[in-house]
Formats: sequence, structure tokens, C-alpha cells
Amino acid sequence: MTAFASMDQTALKENYSKLSEAYAGYKARGLSLNMARGKPGSEQLSISNDILDVLGSDTDFRTEDCPDARNYGGLDGIAEAKKLFADLLSVSPENVFIGGNSSLNMMFDTIACFTELLWKGQEDLKFLCPVPGYDRHFGITEYFGIRMVNVPMTENGPDMDMVEKLVESDPTIKGIWCTPKYSNPQGITYSDDTVRRFAALKPAAKDFRIMWDNAYIVHDITDTPDTLLNIFDETAKTGNDDLVIEFCSTSKITFPGAGVAALAASKNNLELLKRRYKFQTIGYDKLNMLRHVLYFRNVDGILAHMQKHRAVLEPRFELVLSMLDKELAGTGIAEWTKPDGGYFVSVDVMEGTAKRVVELCKEAGVVLTGAGATYPYGKDPSDSNIRIAPTYPPVDELKIAMEVFCIAVKLAAAEKLTSMEP
Amino acid sequence: MTAFASMDQTALKENYSKLSEAYAGYKARGLSLNMARGKPGSEQLSISNDILDVLGSDTDFRTEDCPDARNYGGLDGIAEAKKLFADLLSVSPENVFIGGNSSLNMMFDTIACFTELLWKGQEDLKFLCPVPGYDRHFGITEYFGIRMVNVPMTENGPDMDMVEKLVESDPTIKGIWCTPKYSNPQGITYSDDTVRRFAALKPAAKDFRIMWDNAYIVHDITDTPDTLLNIFDETAKTGNDDLVIEFCSTSKITFPGAGVAALAASKNNLELLKRRYKFQTIGYDKLNMLRHVLYFRNVDGILAHMQKHRAVLEPRFELVLSMLDKELAGTGIAEWTKPDGGYFVSVDVMEGTAKRVVELCKEAGVVLTGAGATYPYGKDPSDSNIRIAPTYPPVDELKIAMEVFCIAVKLAAAEKLTSMEP
Repeated sequence: MTAFASMDQTALKENYSKLSEAYAGYKARGLSLNMARGKPGSEQLSISNDILDVLGSDTDFRTEDCPDARNYGGLDGIAEAKKLFADLLSVSPENVFIGGNSSLNMMFDTIACFTELLWKGQEDLKFLCPVPGYDRHFGITEYFGIRMVNVPMTENGPDMDMVEKLVESDPTIKGIWCTPKYSNPQGITYSDDTVRRFAALKPAAKDFRIMWDNAYIVHDITDTPDTLLNIFDETAKTGNDDLVIEFCSTSKITFPGAGVAALAASKNNLELLKRRYKFQTIGYDKLNMLRHVLYFRNVDGILAHMQKHRAVLEPRFELVLSMLDKELAGTGIAEWTKPDGGYFVSVDVMEGTAKRVVELCKEAGVVLTGAGATYPYGKDPSDSNIRIAPTYPPVDELKIAMEVFCIAVKLAAAEKLTSMEP
Repeated sequence: MTAFASMDQTALKENYSKLSEAYAGYKARGLSLNMARGKPGSEQLSISNDILDVLGSDTDFRTEDCPDARNYGGLDGIAEAKKLFADLLSVSPENVFIGGNSSLNMMFDTIACFTELLWKGQEDLKFLCPVPGYDRHFGITEYFGIRMVNVPMTENGPDMDMVEKLVESDPTIKGIWCTPKYSNPQGITYSDDTVRRFAALKPAAKDFRIMWDNAYIVHDITDTPDTLLNIFDETAKTGNDDLVIEFCSTSKITFPGAGVAALAASKNNLELLKRRYKFQTIGYDKLNMLRHVLYFRNVDGILAHMQKHRAVLEPRFELVLSMLDKELAGTGIAEWTKPDGGYFVSVDVMEGTAKRVVELCKEAGVVLTGAGATYPYGKDPSDSNIRIAPTYPPVDELKIAMEVFCIAVKLAAAEKLTSMEP
């Protein structure tokens, strides 16, 4: 591919014409494709269908700590589920709280709890947001009126010099959102050094908390998966146990919205959270916990299950990456990540063209995550980041959607460079 | 039975000695019985076991408005579930929001939402609490720092003269908790006049809301079930649609904590609630919704199912009531309700003895709901109300527990009247 920067105006305009023509061809096809959200595809959903056969009339509903999982009781979940998630997160079962079906809901409730109990009466709270990041994290923060401060991501995780400087000097900074493994959207896993620096933070705010959203903890898609240090092992060394709340769920292991979610936290943090949870509910769906425990048995069961997901996802990611390579490598107008897991590929297009790329795709029937969605307040200061979600559409549709995307990236750049913007 | 009031001190002391002896006999048996919470018993739980067989690998997971119930999406639930609950509540499906597994959680989230959005920035909020009432309602109110004001219950529901006077004069009164059918703990169903007066309220606070917890909507246990006016029919006549949020769940229809919960509300209220829900979650467990929809099909399916619960519960309530009659009628030291449904029998023992009765029972191995629990802040001003929950223990245990209870009621009264308190 020729670098756009090396083309003169004549070459650019010629290029623009060709791209416009190709784009018009796709547009004429009346496509209706969606690469917007990190949703599993049908093939992935069917992998877990047999979990629905696990419970039946003949099930023994007694659990280790509960006389009948069909009845009320057990605010923090059944013992077997705590054990399973403890093993998954490499923590102790007494540090685990099993919630409902959604780790997002648990994060929302945690911020609500902190606002009501931990940060009560304090004004002008701030949260650090590594960018690009997950729009639903930002949504929770904004809902609770917490001001968001961008921190750039590096290939090792958030810029830790900046994190340390801000957190250790400003007592109004109360927390940070982290997706430490296969981050959303870049698929970056925090380096050991980054995890250790998080565990060693000396926040100016004594009530500072790290929201450690381990959403993709077992979501590897290649032979060279990333590994993440266990942050609680590190906070044990620094005496900073109360710093971290870790979240995860089986939404992308079994069924989105119908899985089991959990958090891990220190004794102090669990006590704090339960001061709210005990009024909020009598307890979450223990039958669904039992269903998952009996289905997986242990972490090996989960890991074996994830291999089936990998088999579906790896070719999709390979397709997306190979098309980006083929269509955009060498153009100098786009850069992207090559994750070993997670749900996204993050593409940085030419500055000031992301919105236009998303618009062009939409007009040609391809829905992408909104430009800016990966930044707090929906504002990407360089208007360049776009999140590609390759998991949901069927492969043949994914290919066409990516063709449209690559043309749109080039067309938007050509428009800008030739001042041909409509 | 001889009225305690008609006995002289000699007779009372003799009576006290006999009761003490009988009580000591029970205490020596080392009982361990529980009549504390409104939990279904095992026999009731097994009624719904076959709902666990409804979903399987061969299920069609498409719903009317959702391409796949196994995937993300659908903030307010699947259309079929909205239809089922709409029919149950006699409202329109567009007024229904399906939540997770717990109507308590939905009530908690609703009060949280109102605090954050509707009543934001206002101080010294108050809520009316018909007493005796449900401790978990009071817990939510207290958690959010809303001051509770007692309103006495009558046989027709809350004292509406008082409700009207307070609500229509005091703009800091923001709401009221109602369990309009088979109220917790008295089993009273609000009269048509009461429901109409609620619908016709002209609150001083424009942001006043009625929390209409229809927990026992189909939970009849006799041939003469109560009927409750549909409050939304009445608010439609008074133009007060925004006044009411109605809640219900299948916790005591299928499985406690693993059923489906829903609320019904006006368009305005739903919009308000969704301003929070959309950040809180992507959507609740649609597979459990589908499981319930396919199991019941329609309201007739639910009603037929409830007959099976009735078959288990009716004899238990009859036992409790017949023992109260046999042991306490005519003593003048206790009054109780005779509900046609719900989960409780409410007993008012001699003023100033409820705590002692609960203590005596506990010492003899019979756990009751704590005295005072049916009042805000756990404070029953007359120390007389005790909630009996006949559903959970096996029938033979229930009988013994009631024997202990009746002796404790009489012993506590005798102690008080003879000044023999320990």
C-alpha cells in the first residue's frame, strides 16, 4: 500500500475517486451488518446449551452451607460458587461475593455503595479512566457525577507515571477503572511492573479504590496467551489489600446476562459492601450458581470450555487482522492492536476522521461502536479511535463489514487530505 | 379460657406456676424450631421443580422482540414476560419492566433512583409506613436516610384519614410503603375505598410516590379469597398515573431468589427508572424469564400452580389459627388476624410483653421474627406485635412451636401481671 502522506494532491484525488466508486458499490448492496458490541455469536452461545440440562427434578439442592438452594438465604452466594470463583481468581473463598447475573451491575452497585458510604459527604470526586476504555465504565462514573480524568494507555497498561503522580497528590481522585487483561478495546494485558505499581500506590485519598474488571480472565484466543499477575498477591506484599475490588462473570463463558457474576475484595471492603447488599437483597439466584458449579466442577472445566470459544473466535480475529494488514498496512493512516484474547480489535484511524469513518460505515449499512465511545463523555480528543467487535456477525458478514470498514477508513482520510469533506 | 383480667393475684400466681412448669417441660426437650421468616417449605419448593426441565438444548431461544434470549440485550425484559406480568397485574405490557430475581432489589433500586434523580438535593425526606409492616421495606428506607412515620393499619388498610392529612399537608413526605393484598404481617387486603382514596391523593409533594408491593397477588389460601382493586384503573380515573409503582415477583410462586421480579409504572416513571437502569445493567436474566413464560404460558397457568401451594399452606394456617383459638381465645391477652392468604399471622400479645414472648420462645428453642421487627427502627411502641410465619417448618414441628408460643404468650402475661418478671 502506498502511504497517503507520500501522495500529492493529484494522486490523492485520483485515489479518492476510486475509493468513492468502491464505496458506492457497497452502499448499493443495501447491507445490514453489525460490528458494534462485544456480543458472542450464535455458534458461541450453543457451546453452553447443555448447561440448561444440568438442573432437574432429581437434583440434590443441598449445598455445603445452605439446606436448599431453591429457598431464600445466603447473601453472598453458595459455598461451592465462592470456591469456584476463588480458584478462578486465585483468591480465598472468604474474599468472594457472588452477585447476580452481571458484573456490570456489581460495579454499578459498588460505586453506588462507595458514594453512599465511603465517599459520603465529599464533593467533586474524580476517577481516572485509562483511554481508550470501556464505555459502560464511563457511563457508571458519569451517572454518579464523578468527574473523569483521562490517562493514556501504553502497551503495558495505563501510563503509571501519570497514575502515580495524580493518585498520590490529589485526594479528590477516588478511584480508577482497569480492565487488566485483554483490555477493552485494545486487548492489552497489564505488565507485571504495572500490576506491582498499582499494588504499591500510596493514594492521597485514603478511600481510593481500584475497580479491577477482570472481564476477560480466561478469554484467550491464541497459542500465546497473555498472563496477568494476581493483584491480590501483590497487595498482600504491600499491605494494600483494601485498594482493589476485582470483578468477573461468566457472561462470555456461558450466557451473557444469564451467567454468574462475582467480586473479590478484602474483608474490610466486603464488610462495607454488605452494609448495603443486606438491604438490597436477600440473596442472588442460587439455582443459577448451582447450575454453573455442577456444569464446570472446577477451573479446569472452565478452561476446557473456553477452548471451544477460542475455536470460534480465533478465525474471526485472524480475518479482521489479515484484512487490516492487507488493506491498511503501509498507508500510514491507521494503526491497530493484535490481541491474544478478549473481544475487540482497537483501530486508530487518521486523526479527525473516526466519526466520519463510523458515519460512512453506517451509511453503507455497517454499524460500528460510535466514535468517541471509548472515551469518557464520548469525547475522543483526536477523533481517531474505533472499536471493532468481530465476535457477533457470521464470518461471511464479518468479511464484508471489514471490507466496508477498510474502504471507509481510506475514504475518510482521502476526503480530509483533499479537503473533499462533504 | 379464663380472662387473665378476671383473675386475682392468687389465681394469677397459681396460673404462673403451672405455665412455668409446662414451659420448663418444653425447654427440657432441646427443641430447634423456626417460625421467623416467610420462607416456603420444602414441599412447596418441590411443586415447581419441573420448571427446571423447561429449557434445554432444543429450546427455541428466539422471542418476539429478541433474536436470542441467550445473548445480551433487552433492558426491560422479553416481550412474552412483559405480557405475562401485564396480564397478572392487569396493566398494559408497555407499563411493565422485568427485573432480576428479586422484587425487593427492584424496590431498593427504585428508592435509590428516586433519591438520586427525583428527590435529588432535597433534605429531611420522610416516608409513611403503615404499621405493623414489612421489616425489609423499613430497612431500605432507613438505609437511604429517609425518616419513617408510623401510620396505623385498620382492617381496611392504612388509616386513610391520617394518610390524607399527612400527605396532603407535608411536602417532605415523599412516599408510602403498601402491601395492599394480604399485608405483611396482618394479611389485610385494602378495601376498595382505601384503594380509591390512594388513587385520589393530592400530595403536597409533587414527587410523592406510592410503593405498591403486591407481593401476595395470587397467594390465596382459602375458599374466600380477598380481591383487591387494580390501583392503576383508579389512578387512570383520577389522572394520577405517576403516583404508583407496583412490584411483584414469582419468589413465592416458583423459587425464592430464583424467580422473576417485575414492576409496573406509568410512562413517566418508567422513563425515570430507565435513566438509571440503562447504566446499571445491559439487561436481566432472559433465560429465566423464558423459563417462566414457557412453564406458566399465561395467568391461568399461574393460578393453577397457586392451588398447589394453597393445598400445602391452608392446613398450616388452620393449625396455627386453631391453636391460637384453643389456647388464647378468651384470655384477653392476645388478638390475631385470620388471613385468607399471604404468608403470616399477626398476633398482638399483651402490651409490653412481645419482646419477652420472643425471648421465652428462643430460650425454649423456637425462633420467631424479632419483636419490633414489624415496626420502623425495630421499635414497636406497645411492644405487642409478633409475626408468626407458618410456612417453613414441617407441620409436626409447627404444632410444637405453636404450643411453645402459646405458653410463652400466657407466661409473659402472667409474669407481668404478677410482677414476677425475672
